[in-house]
Amino acid sequence: MAISEGVLAELRAVLGSGGVVAGDDPVAGFVRDERGLLTARPAAVLRPRSTEEVAEAVAVCHRHRVPVVPFAGGTGLVGGAMPVGEREQVVLSVRGLDRIRSVDPADFALTAEAGCVLTDVQQAAERAGLYFPLRLASEGSARLGGAVATNAGGSNVLRYGMTRELVLGLEAVLPDGRIWHGLRSLRKDNTGYDLKQLLIGSEGTLGVVTAATVRLFPLPRHQAVALLALPGLESLGPLFALAREQLEDRLSALELFGRTGLELLLAHQSGTRDPFDRPYPRYLLVEATAAEDGAGLAAQLERFLAEAVERGLAADAVPALDRPQARALWALREGLPEAEKRAGGAVKHDVSVPLGSIGAFIEAAERALAAAFRNVRVNAFGHVGDGNVHLNVLLPPTRAPEVSPLVHRLVAEHAGSISAEHGIGLLKREALAEYRSPLELELLRTVKAVLDPLGIMNPGKIVK
Amino acid sequence: MAISEGVLAELRAVLGSGGVVAGDDPVAGFVRDERGLLTARPAAVLRPRSTEEVAEAVAVCHRHRVPVVPFAGGTGLVGGAMPVGEREQVVLSVRGLDRIRSVDPADFALTAEAGCVLTDVQQAAERAGLYFPLRLASEGSARLGGAVATNAGGSNVLRYGMTRELVLGLEAVLPDGRIWHGLRSLRKDNTGYDLKQLLIGSEGTLGVVTAATVRLFPLPRHQAVALLALPGLESLGPLFALAREQLEDRLSALELFGRTGLELLLAHQSGTRDPFDRPYPRYLLVEATAAEDGAGLAAQLERFLAEAVERGLAADAVPALDRPQARALWALREGLPEAEKRAGGAVKHDVSVPLGSIGAFIEAAERALAAAFRNVRVNAFGHVGDGNVHLNVLLPPTRAPEVSPLVHRLVAEHAGSISAEHGIGLLKREALAEYRSPLELELLRTVKAVLDPLGIMNPGKIVK
Repeated sequence: MAISEGVLAELRAVLGSGGVVAGDDPVAGFVRDERGLLTARPAAVLRPRSTEEVAEAVAVCHRHRVPVVPFAGGTGLVGGAMPVGEREQVVLSVRGLDRIRSVDPADFALTAEAGCVLTDVQQAAERAGLYFPLRLASEGSARLGGAVATNAGGSNVLRYGMTRELVLGLEAVLPDGRIWHGLRSLRKDNTGYDLKQLLIGSEGTLGVVTAATVRLFPLPRHQAVALLALPGLESLGPLFALAREQLEDRLSALELFGRTGLELLLAHQSGTRDPFDRPYPRYLLVEATAAEDGAGLAAQLERFLAEAVERGLAADAVPALDRPQARALWALREGLPEAEKRAGGAVKHDVSVPLGSIGAFIEAAERALAAAFRNVRVNAFGHVGDGNVHLNVLLPPTRAPEVSPLVHRLVAEHAGSISAEHGIGLLKREALAEYRSPLELELLRTVKAVLDPLGIMNPGKIVK
Repeated sequence: MAISEGVLAELRAVLGSGGVVAGDDPVAGFVRDERGLLTARPAAVLRPRSTEEVAEAVAVCHRHRVPVVPFAGGTGLVGGAMPVGEREQVVLSVRGLDRIRSVDPADFALTAEAGCVLTDVQQAAERAGLYFPLRLASEGSARLGGAVATNAGGSNVLRYGMTRELVLGLEAVLPDGRIWHGLRSLRKDNTGYDLKQLLIGSEGTLGVVTAATVRLFPLPRHQAVALLALPGLESLGPLFALAREQLEDRLSALELFGRTGLELLLAHQSGTRDPFDRPYPRYLLVEATAAEDGAGLAAQLERFLAEAVERGLAADAVPALDRPQARALWALREGLPEAEKRAGGAVKHDVSVPLGSIGAFIEAAERALAAAFRNVRVNAFGHVGDGNVHLNVLLPPTRAPEVSPLVHRLVAEHAGSISAEHGIGLLKREALAEYRSPLELELLRTVKAVLDPLGIMNPGKIVK
């Protein structure tokens, strides 16, 4: 069912004519799927400039039961911000809400609108001498509203937590168009159910996040990075324990990748050199950061490396001696997705397991995949400190229907989650239905039904 | 309306005769109000020994629409676990669920039942060489289920977060008697709305928490403590910023108290000496902890103290040179509630404001109280790093109706919360209704109504 001209006229009355763009207008071209797996055919794209305009536009949609798909940076990987159907839904872009409302160093907090690009939020914090720790590969185009709506993770979760842990307060427009003013900057507030927790990670299905107050931290001016060569995955657990013990909360990243990944980089990323003089089965990038005391930090990392090698947990280790070397080591980890793409793509899985099960899970998955698919290569990498494994199978993405059920089954056997960071959106909805219990699915639907009784807010995402 | 004998017989069939105790039986005497402000007259006290027994008992109550009041340690301060009315509600004690189900060092996690006393959970972690950081004054009798249900805070929040941040997974019995199996130990899990967040802090109004999986951390073997004498509250903000910068994440406590508090201790706590050679208006206890590198930690604290004095942010400072000295400094802060009690009690307020507003709030409150109540003394202390102020007015507790509205109004003016740690329960329900927006109250009621449509789970708490 297409949207009527009358509704569009009402929306234009609220947003101005430039605020309502036809779905097939080139101006609406920014509404597209990051991975190119889905095609967007919205009835229209709405471009409000303020929370009040979002509220009025949603109220119009609510009155006419028009489905609304909130859209921010469009960097999601599961189709959570993609309209479904043929001109049946309107996309509501929050990109026009792009003000940093306040930076409050005394509160170690900052309030920004949903359309702010993450790097702009980071820079606003840095200008005040503070740090906003949400770091994503897509941070130059991902936006705050999307990060909140998807509970984004990234490379700093080990030290600073997921987006959920960074949000102190929210402002949002509910499915009926009312504005919830929840922008608090309190660290402790036990006054009833914590309503913001429902919106965080709800992928736009319970309302439109329009602004957030987030925590800031002291700037980590010093960084110490090293790469360890691992004899095998069995040393992962002891290495993690040793790193937590010796680097404490300064430990900011523990990134695992394998020989398969390094070979992809050597083949497809120009300038890549093998950091060691012989191949090893696995590699672990370690990073620690500190606001003060750079010399102490470097010494701490050195002690950790020496003990790791002495105990036989690492076969070799190279510390970065300066910033360019640190960047070069990080380039190995960060280059993996692009190298995969150049090698022909992959069937990707963003999964998590308990910290102590990472090695066992990766090995079980590699064994099972080798048995099921001849000569298959598996690029397993990820955030070890968070139990988050990107288990990417180097087969054409179109083969996901054959590959993913096998991986998801192993995730379940290891008490894991089929979506660590990326959410459910459209693409993981069926897997969710399979791997969460009937009671949990019922509770998800119950919450959805009560907060969005007309079902107009991003319908079809997470649960059907 | 009293509970019928038939219902009690059904409950006895499920729990055994020892599992159902009459409300006026001396065995039920543990169900009483910590502060003695409320009297408990339950129809019966249920004592299940397992999650399954909790589920069956709740199912019986659900079938007969009998109100159930979950009860754990009974250390809450707002009456959240107190039955209301005359033999109209049954209390369900989770004390019989007292097993540590598993300690998983490789996962940095532990699973314990709701009836475990917090010190038992702490000790189970320590036996595995790890640390469970929830520290409350009442930790020797408070229990895990109550801590989760009230999102307990305590003295370690600055470094480790509230209970909400410590919970990885939950098991709970829903108001209809179904068991939700949500005991995961994942650090990242973006698979739909985070349902456990609703139960955490719900004060038993949405279900009975029966077990939790919680995060563990490296044991902080080293501790450095000092007391600073502050010229006034205006140095609080700069001192906090300096402490975060210089002590980083090792900063574990920043506890403020005033001359009024120290004088209470000097008068009522034997063995208390003034740590300084002259009186100062305010005092700030600083603690930093570390798993390794005790010498480095002590040096870090010394640098901080030197710089604080040099910049004029502190008038004087005494570092604790050993454990007994550290304990003696902590005894000042921890002795305050007892000293208040001996001085005749107080009208207490557990409130929070944004970090940057603590000084302004305390001064405004002291001024307003001095103007309203002749010669009144105010004992303002609390967790500065969390914006949490215990603003206790040294007047008989019975005068709360005169005093608290004035304090709450000032909290609202400073964008704060009328309950930082203690929750709402029964005693703060009216204040909540006054200080949260109609939309928020409606959302609280909506969530309650949909998860507990019969309204049998701890009715009358948080919202009416």
